[in-house]
Amino acid sequence: MSLLVVGTVAFDAIETPFGKTDKIIGGAATYASLSASYFASQVNLVGVVGDDFPQSMIQEFNNHRVRTEGLQILEGQKSFFWSGRYHTDMNSRDTLDTQLNVLANFDPIIPESYQGCEFLMLGNLMPKIQRQVIERLKKRPKLIVMDTMNFWMETAMDDLLENIAMVDVLTINDAEARQLTNEYSLVKAAKKILAMGPRYLVIKKGEHGALLFHENQVFFAPALPLEDVFDPTGAGDTFAGGFIGYLAKSRDISFSSMKRAIIYGSAMASFCVEKFGTERIINLSSEELNERIQEFIDLVQFDITLV
Amino acid sequence: MSLLVVGTVAFDAIETPFGKTDKIIGGAATYASLSASYFASQVNLVGVVGDDFPQSMIQEFNNHRVRTEGLQILEGQKSFFWSGRYHTDMNSRDTLDTQLNVLANFDPIIPESYQGCEFLMLGNLMPKIQRQVIERLKKRPKLIVMDTMNFWMETAMDDLLENIAMVDVLTINDAEARQLTNEYSLVKAAKKILAMGPRYLVIKKGEHGALLFHENQVFFAPALPLEDVFDPTGAGDTFAGGFIGYLAKSRDISFSSMKRAIIYGSAMASFCVEKFGTERIINLSSEELNERIQEFIDLVQFDITLV
Repeated sequence: MSLLVVGTVAFDAIETPFGKTDKIIGGAATYASLSASYFASQVNLVGVVGDDFPQSMIQEFNNHRVRTEGLQILEGQKSFFWSGRYHTDMNSRDTLDTQLNVLANFDPIIPESYQGCEFLMLGNLMPKIQRQVIERLKKRPKLIVMDTMNFWMETAMDDLLENIAMVDVLTINDAEARQLTNEYSLVKAAKKILAMGPRYLVIKKGEHGALLFHENQVFFAPALPLEDVFDPTGAGDTFAGGFIGYLAKSRDISFSSMKRAIIYGSAMASFCVEKFGTERIINLSSEELNERIQEFIDLVQFDITLV
Repeated sequence: MSLLVVGTVAFDAIETPFGKTDKIIGGAATYASLSASYFASQVNLVGVVGDDFPQSMIQEFNNHRVRTEGLQILEGQKSFFWSGRYHTDMNSRDTLDTQLNVLANFDPIIPESYQGCEFLMLGNLMPKIQRQVIERLKKRPKLIVMDTMNFWMETAMDDLLENIAMVDVLTINDAEARQLTNEYSLVKAAKKILAMGPRYLVIKKGEHGALLFHENQVFFAPALPLEDVFDPTGAGDTFAGGFIGYLAKSRDISFSSMKRAIIYGSAMASFCVEKFGTERIINLSSEELNERIQEFIDLVQFDITLV
């Protein structure tokens, strides 16, 4: 049940209608690995930071059973930095600043002790780097989940399409699914994407939930209606981490299990957005998680018996 | 289990990315009563048309056990006409033309044979007219469901608020819920609206489904992911008709029953959008409806057992 998570580990500075942060810890792999740690007994992290990255956060990872042997710390360099401002609707945002820093020449080295992992989460990264990770694993994992974003569709589409053909589950948002396929209908877009290779497709719709497509089946999980979405940063990565973390724990990759994984991912994401950054997902109790899952059950459960 | 449906019976001319119609039959009460007829054993219609309204459609209503004694036909006058064009996303539209015609002086006369109805659906109309209907019923119905729109919030807010305080279930869309309360969060908006009087609130989110709020409970029904949304006109009214039609049939207005009603309403709406106007909902078989309900069950059903 070993799980490998690859992606950015970074600093973010965020502005929302509710407030503003200085540099806080962010990054796709940060959110995904912390989220997965609530399910998987061990998470192996691969990423890169500069020597400005706080040791206390590395300790936090380890406290969550996230192994950091594969987290490269480049002396004399700075960590990846992103800054953004969310609009009132929280579904759109402007990027204010992006400083690649250590990410510019990221060489994703896989420690020997990580080899043989059964589950691989490829967080959003340049497609060539995601590809390198797949190639450097001596044994193909049982399940590869890949996230990506519109930027790579615009700048590295050929590389991205090669990756899409190699993975089992692709997770993208609704706008990206439309961009990738030139189809407005998500059902038509999903058919085209499944024809590109992956057996499963997750389309994330933010506050409108998530869709899971597989062959001719479709499953929908709502987002939990919340009084306030405080900061959506990392919600998609937290979702993906909960999703693959649950699958790694259960070792069951049937459609039924994937549906449960989507619910666990959605529950983790619903916590993530309640506070800035990783604050809310760093100290969750199993009681809180169970209560949240029950809220999801109550939210969609109905009893109709067809005759 | 008698059901009274009040609202517009009209002509529409519709343009969507998929095509364009000449004048076709439309109107909130048309969609709602036809939809309700698949559940309620009898639907009593109150509305007004001109002598340009085709007798064949009145026959169609009667074939669906929609009684038309309360459908006034004003000689020498023309029926209400609306024309609109949908944008590519099908969630927004421009009104091209509105001709009130017979609606300008609509006096909603309730035939004596309609008195004593237990369920009342007030389709979108000027709030003063909706109010007249409530006042003209000698016995308050067991359940009053009211639909409205943003236009009345801008032109007749005081009348609208009086109505909202009098009804059991208010159905509005997400933008209208925000406009009515000045709250962006739908959870906060729902709390404010429930405090205005209605015991139940349905927030319609179009392709993103519908939310049912009651006290501290919330239920979510997705919209069925469709390959094509051909024409969204009337989907909200068809939803409301299926909702109240199911409740009138079951005579059960518990929260559990309301949840089922939301699913039936959503299923009816999913048919409505597949063709122009009422075409798809005029000839549905019970097999088609059951298959569609099964699709909703499959879409959201998951099994998680919390320990």
